[in-house]
Amino acid sequence: MKANRIKSLWADGKPVLNGWLSIPNAFTAEILAEQGYDSITIDLQHGLIDYQAALGMLQAMRASEVAPLVRVPWLDPAAIMKVLDAGACGVICPMINTGAQAAELVSYMRYPPSGTRSFGPTRAVFSAGPNYGAEADGNVLCFAMIETAEGFNNLDEIVATPGLDGVYIGPSDLTLGLTGRRYPFGFDREEPEMVDAIRKILDAAHRAGIRAALHCGGSAYAAKAIGWGFDLVTLPNDVRLLAAASGASVADTRKLIAEGAGAASQR
Amino acid sequence: MKANRIKSLWADGKPVLNGWLSIPNAFTAEILAEQGYDSITIDLQHGLIDYQAALGMLQAMRASEVAPLVRVPWLDPAAIMKVLDAGACGVICPMINTGAQAAELVSYMRYPPSGTRSFGPTRAVFSAGPNYGAEADGNVLCFAMIETAEGFNNLDEIVATPGLDGVYIGPSDLTLGLTGRRYPFGFDREEPEMVDAIRKILDAAHRAGIRAALHCGGSAYAAKAIGWGFDLVTLPNDVRLLAAASGASVADTRKLIAEGAGAASQR
Amino acid sequence: MKANRIKSLWADGKPVLNGWLSIPNAFTAEILAEQGYDSITIDLQHGLIDYQAALGMLQAMRASEVAPLVRVPWLDPAAIMKVLDAGACGVICPMINTGAQAAELVSYMRYPPSGTRSFGPTRAVFSAGPNYGAEADGNVLCFAMIETAEGFNNLDEIVATPGLDGVYIGPSDLTLGLTGRRYPFGFDREEPEMVDAIRKILDAAHRAGIRAALHCGGSAYAAKAIGWGFDLVTLPNDVRLLAAASGASVADTRKLIAEGAGAASQR
Amino acid sequence: MKANRIKSLWADGKPVLNGWLSIPNAFTAEILAEQGYDSITIDLQHGLIDYQAALGMLQAMRASEVAPLVRVPWLDPAAIMKVLDAGACGVICPMINTGAQAAELVSYMRYPPSGTRSFGPTRAVFSAGPNYGAEADGNVLCFAMIETAEGFNNLDEIVATPGLDGVYIGPSDLTLGLTGRRYPFGFDREEPEMVDAIRKILDAAHRAGIRAALHCGGSAYAAKAIGWGFDLVTLPNDVRLLAAASGASVADTRKLIAEGAGAASQR
Amino acid sequence: MKANRIKSLWADGKPVLNGWLSIPNAFTAEILAEQGYDSITIDLQHGLIDYQAALGMLQAMRASEVAPLVRVPWLDPAAIMKVLDAGACGVICPMINTGAQAAELVSYMRYPPSGTRSFGPTRAVFSAGPNYGAEADGNVLCFAMIETAEGFNNLDEIVATPGLDGVYIGPSDLTLGLTGRRYPFGFDREEPEMVDAIRKILDAAHRAGIRAALHCGGSAYAAKAIGWGFDLVTLPNDVRLLAAASGASVADTRKLIAEGAGAASQR
Amino acid sequence: MKANRIKSLWADGKPVLNGWLSIPNAFTAEILAEQGYDSITIDLQHGLIDYQAALGMLQAMRASEVAPLVRVPWLDPAAIMKVLDAGACGVICPMINTGAQAAELVSYMRYPPSGTRSFGPTRAVFSAGPNYGAEADGNVLCFAMIETAEGFNNLDEIVATPGLDGVYIGPSDLTLGLTGRRYPFGFDREEPEMVDAIRKILDAAHRAGIRAALHCGGSAYAAKAIGWGFDLVTLPNDVRLLAAASGASVADTRKLIAEGAGAASQR
Repeated sequence: MKANRIKSLWADGKPVLNGWLSIPNAFTAEILAEQGYDSITIDLQHGLIDYQAALGMLQAMRASEVAPLVRVPWLDPAAIMKVLDAGACGVICPMINTGAQAAELVSYMRYPPSGTRSFGPTRAVFSAGPNYGAEADGNVLCFAMIETAEGFNNLDEIVATPGLDGVYIGPSDLTLGLTGRRYPFGFDREEPEMVDAIRKILDAAHRAGIRAALHCGGSAYAAKAIGWGFDLVTLPNDVRLLAAASGASVADTRKLIAEGAGAASQR
Repeated sequence: MKANRIKSLWADGKPVLNGWLSIPNAFTAEILAEQGYDSITIDLQHGLIDYQAALGMLQAMRASEVAPLVRVPWLDPAAIMKVLDAGACGVICPMINTGAQAAELVSYMRYPPSGTRSFGPTRAVFSAGPNYGAEADGNVLCFAMIETAEGFNNLDEIVATPGLDGVYIGPSDLTLGLTGRRYPFGFDREEPEMVDAIRKILDAAHRAGIRAALHCGGSAYAAKAIGWGFDLVTLPNDVRLLAAASGASVADTRKLIAEGAGAASQR
Repeated sequence: MKANRIKSLWADGKPVLNGWLSIPNAFTAEILAEQGYDSITIDLQHGLIDYQAALGMLQAMRASEVAPLVRVPWLDPAAIMKVLDAGACGVICPMINTGAQAAELVSYMRYPPSGTRSFGPTRAVFSAGPNYGAEADGNVLCFAMIETAEGFNNLDEIVATPGLDGVYIGPSDLTLGLTGRRYPFGFDREEPEMVDAIRKILDAAHRAGIRAALHCGGSAYAAKAIGWGFDLVTLPNDVRLLAAASGASVADTRKLIAEGAGAASQR
Repeated sequence: MKANRIKSLWADGKPVLNGWLSIPNAFTAEILAEQGYDSITIDLQHGLIDYQAALGMLQAMRASEVAPLVRVPWLDPAAIMKVLDAGACGVICPMINTGAQAAELVSYMRYPPSGTRSFGPTRAVFSAGPNYGAEADGNVLCFAMIETAEGFNNLDEIVATPGLDGVYIGPSDLTLGLTGRRYPFGFDREEPEMVDAIRKILDAAHRAGIRAALHCGGSAYAAKAIGWGFDLVTLPNDVRLLAAASGASVADTRKLIAEGAGAASQR
Repeated sequence: MKANRIKSLWADGKPVLNGWLSIPNAFTAEILAEQGYDSITIDLQHGLIDYQAALGMLQAMRASEVAPLVRVPWLDPAAIMKVLDAGACGVICPMINTGAQAAELVSYMRYPPSGTRSFGPTRAVFSAGPNYGAEADGNVLCFAMIETAEGFNNLDEIVATPGLDGVYIGPSDLTLGLTGRRYPFGFDREEPEMVDAIRKILDAAHRAGIRAALHCGGSAYAAKAIGWGFDLVTLPNDVRLLAAASGASVADTRKLIAEGAGAASQR
Repeated sequence: MKANRIKSLWADGKPVLNGWLSIPNAFTAEILAEQGYDSITIDLQHGLIDYQAALGMLQAMRASEVAPLVRVPWLDPAAIMKVLDAGACGVICPMINTGAQAAELVSYMRYPPSGTRSFGPTRAVFSAGPNYGAEADGNVLCFAMIETAEGFNNLDEIVATPGLDGVYIGPSDLTLGLTGRRYPFGFDREEPEMVDAIRKILDAAHRAGIRAALHCGGSAYAAKAIGWGFDLVTLPNDVRLLAAASGASVADTRKLIAEGAGAASQR
């Protein structure tokens, strides 16, 4: 079975830079897969992407070295098993609030007797290799998102779930969950109580011997998170990158035109 | 009929900033339509876009103020008439080499007796209004691309074509056409002979009373072109913006991580 | 945030005429959006439409004044949150049978601390505006369908659900649920016991201070329902309209041809 | 090979009622295929439909008795041969202006030695039967559209083209072509000079021993055209039917509501 | 309502040969529908197929005599009801572990008062006929998959579920479930304990008066299963057939080339 | 730039086994790309495939070693340039009848000053590498199909076209073109006059220093053609493989069932 790049990097003691896809398109996936990310996640929750679009995106990223992950929309066996059959090498599941939910998640991703995954890796035997059935349990990564007050309160039982590979922090929802509307929406929290919460999750994961991942809004925070010990950081998604870059392209041009007109009028 | 924003801006003496779409996706079109461009062109020639994808992109941009143009793949009546029926408010046609070709292009975009366009504005009557048939000839913009040696040599007869609204310069092909492989591929030419050629086309267009447009690779050159008198400049396309922004996001993060690790190791 | 047209009409004391889309196509959506409906619902339950098709339909309706609603296939957080992120300004959820289910529904549509909606309005920030996060809870409409015997029996607890904006009656399922197969399938019930049931739901909703909506099969019944006090009525869907209109077009022509042939043969 | 229903009807001396599809969707095609049309044309010229959409529409109509025709966007061998390979049982080609063009059209639709069609009926061998290659030349119908002044002037040489099955009149373009902007856009011409022109084409076709077809805007005109002797009439397309039916549904309801409110206020 | 071919065959005492579709494509469905299968199942669980792709496949198979079944991804009312509305004449539901789950499954497929299916057969009224509502309960087939240890242990209560038409055995998952990793993955089990288990399910179904179906990997095993008394056997899916046939085409050619080269070199 | 596998094999004196895709689907493309073909051609002429489908297929094959070719529908600059921009490493153009057409074909595939290809390799710079512009002319393969009487008569001028890499024989059309309907349709001609014609084309190509390719219907003929000296042979396409394999699966099973029933009845 094709090696999981995330596992290789971690085995070498290196952090993972994760890209994020919210546009339902195979070419944008192919473009990002050439930019140096270690892994890229297709977001079926808040991304405008469904299963069929994700399939084309997995195909378009296959030629690259990038490890393809999928964030599923919910703790749902159908959705989880379908993206694994389609060749995802890991799943990020949102809104895990209890140890029981975390155990359910792990169960959906492992074949019996370890779990309850149904056998039928229709594309995975092509993309990952014919021995997929025998090796998938040990290769496919399982991340539980901790992003609610309930999940935060049940942190210790979640990280202790046998078979769970890591926790993934959604800072925007976590802030809403822990503090209501006290602070503005967004990633890259600087409020001390949120930084504390984030680092508490990181520490709990590492104590339990599993990995910790953080969704970030920019390079500076991502690098800081790596410094704190995070094993995987997610960089801004395709939508934000494209909107910011195109907005800046227009604004910069308008500014230069105005300056040019001003300079001309002074002559 | 809905006013053509490009015409309004020109009537006010203002230049037009044009965006460029090469990704076959309606959401990327919708994102760019919110960034302040005056017009946006869907590229059916070098973009990875065909008619059906373009249709969804036209629909996704309709709510914005942006004027939607289409670059067709070739001087082909079927392609030209189909995108007009779908609601494009202008067409850019590549590789116009002679006055006869320019006249053919104009003919495909105007109803009899002015031209040979076939009547059936299936979507345009919804997007532009029920009086489309009567007003389209005066509203829809027709651009001929000058980008070959032959086209450059026939510049005067092309710009003199009755009914042509403007010429559009493709600097990359024009450089190949005029100089072979003497210079590297690309937009934003700085070689004096290419700058001369570009400005010669601009002047010929203006002398003939039509508009001149330039495909640019960056804000600085675009602003300079506006300074030269260009009526419309095209800014970098979605693919370049997304690739550059995502590549920079990864590179910046790696650099910061390395610096952080370096700083840590010095402590 | 862009105003919700349904809320504005209700604030003005006006009823809402709602269209209904069951064909998975963005152009049929765009056509209907120009016909004078106040709101249009994309039906993901019985319509032949899934998420990706709905996305294109939302984009195609954005330029109109119409408020876009979505009927989700089931009380499912993933489906509900995805259509809201995609820009629906309201959700109609089928088969709500208890107050607990109604509360669950409301919860999926409101951000913490009001509910459990996860934050990530990927398209909604473009279609509804950048302050979407702060204002969505007060703008997005939540309808529970009452259409089973159990739901009817639990009417009072359902309408009392905090945060629920209205109930929506599916007369066809309600008739099946309350009377089994005693009456034929269909909307626009004339049986006294069904009219009573429908008006009982209307009254319960209004007593609880929320809105009531009715799925109708024709203009006469819709107007009658408005006369009863319904706040929103749904008119025949695209499939029925197209099938009826095309069937009539053929039948009328055949009749006229036969008459013409008859007249000719008599000469 | 599956019998061509149009040929059977004509052999029985019956006229053909033809439906028209401009919406790119397989379900709308399937709906119309159940409404009693004898044939249905997928419009790749002014319809918002390309090849891939047409393929799904051909599949969705196969279960019905309806004969599927395609109007191609232009006199283009690639487009014509592709739709035949996909299972169209006839082609309507727009803008045929000369006998030479008509001969070219016929040539693209017949295998050597009769024509120049390339062999590869990839879907047609499934939809029409394994002996497609041997029988297609005699089964597939070829219509040339006469809709320009030039085509009208060359009427006699066009109808005399060996292998041409019929002419198809586009009254809207024909009116533009023959009279410029003297009259409004539209089908169902009542101006004497246009009625004369239409009947002149009909007569020329019949004199030459081929069929004549007319694009109509309503049942009354279609029945009248059958009375004149037309062999095939096209009824209003899916877009017009759906727009008219949905517009009427809203307007009727608003009228009834207003009347109800008026009646109530008088009490 | 169109007769269900599976029911007709069973009424005649004949077994059913079932094809299996895992490729998301309407043309592959159309091809297989011409090859002599009695029924064909679209696999939404392990197939790379979602609802929208399945819709096109159902349309493409409609012209054939084949009975279209769908395997849904999970015991989920939304998915089950949607494929029935789209025209499936039966549903295979994976991972049924208890009698309660089997009863839930049946409930989702029958209208009240027999079950809880919501009424809205949007496409089924076209594909199966206008009396669909009244006759669907007696026509649509409901299969529960028995493929886990738990399901096997609860065999008797599952087969006794009122309204269940049959059980469907997934031998690969069943082997995993009953024996863990003792044996290799795959269909067509020859291990005595697995053959016993399979025949035990067959016998339990027949004792309970319902049908039994088996997923097979090849013709020999399928014929053997028919000999055992199975009512329906599934033959290899499109993916396996295509991969095997194309792999053999290449390998055979390479072998013949090598032999030819060898023969040539010996001369 | 990524090496063209066809060129490497030829440089090593090895023949090329070419697969052929007529199903518009990325997963069937991905399946075939794992079966050992050296190159695979996406057929936009007789395949049910258009540009957008081909794009997904090119993406799905990228991870394999296979060289992706495209057969375009016609000698059309728009179609040819678009598939090259999308990453095809070679083009097969049907119906080349004269040296002038062959020269036109070459021209569309080479950048100035060698040809007239327009610059904009939007996907090719990702799939083949950033130096695509400089190296494409020497890498991209250009095949002219000889398959008409006219093309056969002009064989010598076609093979002499500067820049043409090879000729590709379509035996089915060539038989129609040279012999009309004397022989049945199909590949793998055994008639002496057709074998002579095919070998005459092969010899002419080799004498002119270019390659020769043959479309074959089975392994035996393909191996024989390699023995004759052909440089590339095409094996049966996906449609034929799938239809034959599924048809045989059903027929074999029915035969075994009948034998089993016979054996049982004899007991």
